[in-house]
Amino acid sequence: MKVIAVSGYKGGCGKSVTSLHLARFLADYGQVLLIDSDPNRSCENWSKRSPKPLPFTVVNEKGATRYIPGNDYLVLDTPARPASHELKEISEGADLTVLPCIPDAFSLQAMFSLLSDLHPQAVYRCLLTVCPPAPSKEAIKVRTALEEAQVPLFFGQIRRSAGFVKAIALGLPVCDLPSKDRMGWRDYETVGKEILTILQVS
Amino acid sequence: MKVIAVSGYKGGCGKSVTSLHLARFLADYGQVLLIDSDPNRSCENWSKRSPKPLPFTVVNEKGATRYIPGNDYLVLDTPARPASHELKEISEGADLTVLPCIPDAFSLQAMFSLLSDLHPQAVYRCLLTVCPPAPSKEAIKVRTALEEAQVPLFFGQIRRSAGFVKAIALGLPVCDLPSKDRMGWRDYETVGKEILTILQVS
Repeated sequence: MKVIAVSGYKGGCGKSVTSLHLARFLADYGQVLLIDSDPNRSCENWSKRSPKPLPFTVVNEKGATRYIPGNDYLVLDTPARPASHELKEISEGADLTVLPCIPDAFSLQAMFSLLSDLHPQAVYRCLLTVCPPAPSKEAIKVRTALEEAQVPLFFGQIRRSAGFVKAIALGLPVCDLPSKDRMGWRDYETVGKEILTILQVS
Repeated sequence: MKVIAVSGYKGGCGKSVTSLHLARFLADYGQVLLIDSDPNRSCENWSKRSPKPLPFTVVNEKGATRYIPGNDYLVLDTPARPASHELKEISEGADLTVLPCIPDAFSLQAMFSLLSDLHPQAVYRCLLTVCPPAPSKEAIKVRTALEEAQVPLFFGQIRRSAGFVKAIALGLPVCDLPSKDRMGWRDYETVGKEILTILQVS
């Protein structure tokens, strides 16, 4: 069983959207449990809104225990701002910690302060999310800043897209939307494949 | 002295951007102290990046006490996800609680769960932030949902704008940027005037 934690010090960075889309991606490769430990319960409530059965299970952390055995992948959506000792434990307990980051200075600053709080043996990658389309250079700027600081990053990144807003409202992953709203799914496919590679190697 | 708290259950909703722009607006009407109690210290760090003196003071909550006397306005930026009892205390202690909300289903859901945790006598308004431009209808949808639930809302709302991203990076409020990046300032002026009216009445 592989554990993928999705965490960060900055709320609103696409943590829950990332958790549920990675869970959807991994569901094509094995049995997936998404554990929602964010007190807002965004993922759990999203799954309850879903008009059709999802190919993975979503539970909140309090009731998760009995659902854990037998899965191939656990995706863990964490609280918006875990304490530094919690982040250390989260990143120690995961095979991979995914750290979503919106390309702006507040998020970048929170990311740098987070990195020193990860467990020393943690395997992690930053994931640029909500990236505005060209001609905006914000995503490139933040990617460059992270690369220069030798922070490990996914090659893939997630675009800002109205499809995600619709998907959240409908209780569906973007891959289940009409094709005009489905572009963001490609981004999660790219990142999902990177994750499978990382998990094979680690 | 009037106290304006900026709070919410969902991170990344523009809480710090709102705090610092309201502080800038109010600085034209009196002496302003912005107290940063978000553990990410986004406002405090932003003020340290500022290339020129700001017309208001930014301090973190731990060192705030000595700076409080003599101000006309206190703007309080709160942690990303206060506990319900903390929110009750925050909203009780403020003359006005501003609740930023991004127009998406996760944020709307967090807003509804927050509202029941406010102090019963709290004066508060939701503020729609990061509103995408037309033809997006997301802001209208969320405004309608809040209005139908009789949730008090600011008439003004804050647009999504690259100017804010630049302002955050530079340590400046958007009103100090070149005119092409300054449009968002009008939105905070509109909301700032509503706040002055509410504070006069309350």
